[in-house]
Amino acid sequence: MSTVGKVIKCKAAVAYDFKKPLVIEEIEVAPPKAHEVRVKVCASGICHTDDHALVGGMASLNFPVILGHEGAGIVESVGEGVFKVQPGDHVILLCSPMCMKCKACLHEESNFCEKNDVGKNVGLMLDKTTRFSIKGKMIHNFMSTSTFTQYTVVDEFAICRIDKAAPMDQVCLIGCGFSTGFGTVLNTAKVKPGTTCVVFGLGGIGMSAVMACKIAGATRIIGVDINPTKFPKAKELGCTECVNPNDCSKPIHEVITEMTNGGADYAFECIGKVDVMASMIQSTNYAFGSANIIGVPPIKDRISLDAMWLLTGRTVQGAFLGDYKAPEAFPGLVNDVLSGKINLSALISYKLPLEDVNKGFDLMRNGKTIRTVLEMGKH
Amino acid sequence: MSTVGKVIKCKAAVAYDFKKPLVIEEIEVAPPKAHEVRVKVCASGICHTDDHALVGGMASLNFPVILGHEGAGIVESVGEGVFKVQPGDHVILLCSPMCMKCKACLHEESNFCEKNDVGKNVGLMLDKTTRFSIKGKMIHNFMSTSTFTQYTVVDEFAICRIDKAAPMDQVCLIGCGFSTGFGTVLNTAKVKPGTTCVVFGLGGIGMSAVMACKIAGATRIIGVDINPTKFPKAKELGCTECVNPNDCSKPIHEVITEMTNGGADYAFECIGKVDVMASMIQSTNYAFGSANIIGVPPIKDRISLDAMWLLTGRTVQGAFLGDYKAPEAFPGLVNDVLSGKINLSALISYKLPLEDVNKGFDLMRNGKTIRTVLEMGKH
Repeated sequence: MSTVGKVIKCKAAVAYDFKKPLVIEEIEVAPPKAHEVRVKVCASGICHTDDHALVGGMASLNFPVILGHEGAGIVESVGEGVFKVQPGDHVILLCSPMCMKCKACLHEESNFCEKNDVGKNVGLMLDKTTRFSIKGKMIHNFMSTSTFTQYTVVDEFAICRIDKAAPMDQVCLIGCGFSTGFGTVLNTAKVKPGTTCVVFGLGGIGMSAVMACKIAGATRIIGVDINPTKFPKAKELGCTECVNPNDCSKPIHEVITEMTNGGADYAFECIGKVDVMASMIQSTNYAFGSANIIGVPPIKDRISLDAMWLLTGRTVQGAFLGDYKAPEAFPGLVNDVLSGKINLSALISYKLPLEDVNKGFDLMRNGKTIRTVLEMGKH
Repeated sequence: MSTVGKVIKCKAAVAYDFKKPLVIEEIEVAPPKAHEVRVKVCASGICHTDDHALVGGMASLNFPVILGHEGAGIVESVGEGVFKVQPGDHVILLCSPMCMKCKACLHEESNFCEKNDVGKNVGLMLDKTTRFSIKGKMIHNFMSTSTFTQYTVVDEFAICRIDKAAPMDQVCLIGCGFSTGFGTVLNTAKVKPGTTCVVFGLGGIGMSAVMACKIAGATRIIGVDINPTKFPKAKELGCTECVNPNDCSKPIHEVITEMTNGGADYAFECIGKVDVMASMIQSTNYAFGSANIIGVPPIKDRISLDAMWLLTGRTVQGAFLGDYKAPEAFPGLVNDVLSGKINLSALISYKLPLEDVNKGFDLMRNGKTIRTVLEMGKH
């Protein structure tokens, strides 16, 4: 029986307050309005950004809310005026959607659309409402997507169509973590062959950065993490060496500077700690180092930056979602997965049913997983 | 009578302690050793960096010392093994010399030679001595050059030969301030035509940055200074608008963001204040702004940097001497002065004899001058 035009009842993980476990609920998902799309979510990664929001690290978070922003699914129905996709299309949900009309979207080097909800975290769609409710009470959206649910409704600009052959449980990672690490190496830093790279933090983003450094032709890729259980996987994916700062008698930036005879060509911070960002910057060569911030620190934290670190010739950049213009770039990344150029399965430590979402958060918080993917089950 | 091989006695401005006026003294300048060059200084700009050192803003400064690092002159004699120049050649002294052999020199995007004395400020030549003395007591060198003297001796790598037709009292500015502002715009930020630029601080460096923004084809060039007497000259050199933060009811970065409908494409900090650097970064467009640090802050000051400023897409860079590889680039800049492409005379507010060096410092400290050039007189 068709669900088109009707309210769908389905399972979702609802967050009711900061630092509280998510609650599996039966929610109502209203049909898409004009220029909106209702998507049957198939798989969603659990990303540190979900936890970052849940612990109060963002500027704002309005409850109740359905978290999750790294998802892939199948279009169930479309609202009036939607021509980009049709029911049955496979899609990745875009946590950094692009209107392709604003100054940021039109700039060749930017992907940070004025209309995205990143950093603002108002938790509403473009019309300032959402399609989610529980017993009639509105539930907020998260980062234009909300993927910890069997169905979601998003604005048309927050999806892109992908090849139907793509494995949903893998390509969902393109929605955030993988692209964030992988793209910053290739699009932001533009790592050149024969260079030395240092990656701070070997979680899902860091591992994706390592993969990109290898593809870019870096000859030395140094992984840094205080959790040495990450090292075998990091080496499998491309690290030529791994260093645990807790094993060093000097500050890590001095260790890296010595190891690399003056500092790395490129460094990447994939954790979100301002002190590590300062170390990361200093780990690059004083005269030409490229320091790249990927991790998102708690909202009030500040990097204590010595201007001299830059005056000698370093560059510091940040990027969101790896500087990918997602609607244009993601289908190509999916193709790279299908052709075997990108091995996303190497990043997945666990697959869990939606019901085990809190277990997934615990695995992530305890450093027991590169990436955990939630599968939404038959629905 | 030839001075070659002999000690030369001449006038110099000697600094004996922090924050004390310089003292005009008769000093001894020993002949150049192997791979050194003795230069008859003709003209030297007075740069804020000289004052920055004198007030204790640098990591180190060893007294007594002959300050000045923005000079042009004529080769008097050369030490053994010098083939780069010969007596009579006109030269610019290089405060950021390049050995062209180290990692930094060989990197296509760096100019910060491992052997320069910038930031270290040991005040010695490569052999760990200097050729300056007064009554037998050694006087330190400054930034590989020391130009507040009628004669100086520098390592061979700290000079470059220029066209003899060049006016010394103008091209001395290429040695530091002019190149620093001009080059950061063209080499570091690589300003594109049709863009909007904001220049914070309209001293010698800021005015040079304005000139470069105009040459690069920026359509809006906004000058920012708390001293409005700088505005007419800034507009003469290229500013389309000037703003005094003291006249604004909002923080200057908010004013600029409104004026530019979302932030400038490029911004430049030409003062050396960490708070202004933070404002400068925020004055650029959040999604694609290029923020460039040129000014040198006091050694212990830190920029309080919000990582989110960068994560949305901004880039922060610093540059020393405008990222020019000075030995290769400066002769070309001199040619551009001779052809009229660069108008250095517009930057010169006062010309004073060496004896008036302290008056020159006072003019600079009181914001009464774009650039003051000392002329060394007949010697």
